[in-house]
Amino acid sequence: MKAKVYVKLKPSVLDPQGKAIHHSVELLGFEKVGDVRQGKYFEIALDPGLSSEEAQATAEKIARDVLANPVIEDYSVVID
Amino acid sequence: MKAKVYVKLKPSVLDPQGKAIHHSVELLGFEKVGDVRQGKYFEIALDPGLSSEEAQATAEKIARDVLANPVIEDYSVVID
Repeated sequence: MKAKVYVKLKPSVLDPQGKAIHHSVELLGFEKVGDVRQGKYFEIALDPGLSSEEAQATAEKIARDVLANPVIEDYSVVID
Repeated sequence: MKAKVYVKLKPSVLDPQGKAIHHSVELLGFEKVGDVRQGKYFEIALDPGLSSEEAQATAEKIARDVLANPVIEDYSVVID
């Protein structure tokens, strides 16, 4: 069983890395790109014996405690 | 129109950062976690005038040329 965790900066938080990527993308000639924001993506392999509720709860706790900084980041968890 | 780009290391490529996260997660008492792998996640705001095919093509080209290193990373693009 696999949990996918997506962590991104809250919309109100500045993202200088995303701005730098946006600038590079523009220099390379891509038009029609309004904004770029960077986040993190994690794949967590979980014990296949867990129920999907247990897997969701475990992955959310790991996301909250370890992977994301809830002060400036939002996260979402998808169980596969 | 928003493109979401997920970049992750190819399965054959070692992921020391993921291993470090896995180790921390174990030290914190989480059991039933087999493996953790870290990737990157990007949100690209695209011109709403693009068709979804054009948006997909633009986002894939940006992913290939700028966001991912195709030698060691796989990427996938989802248009929202």
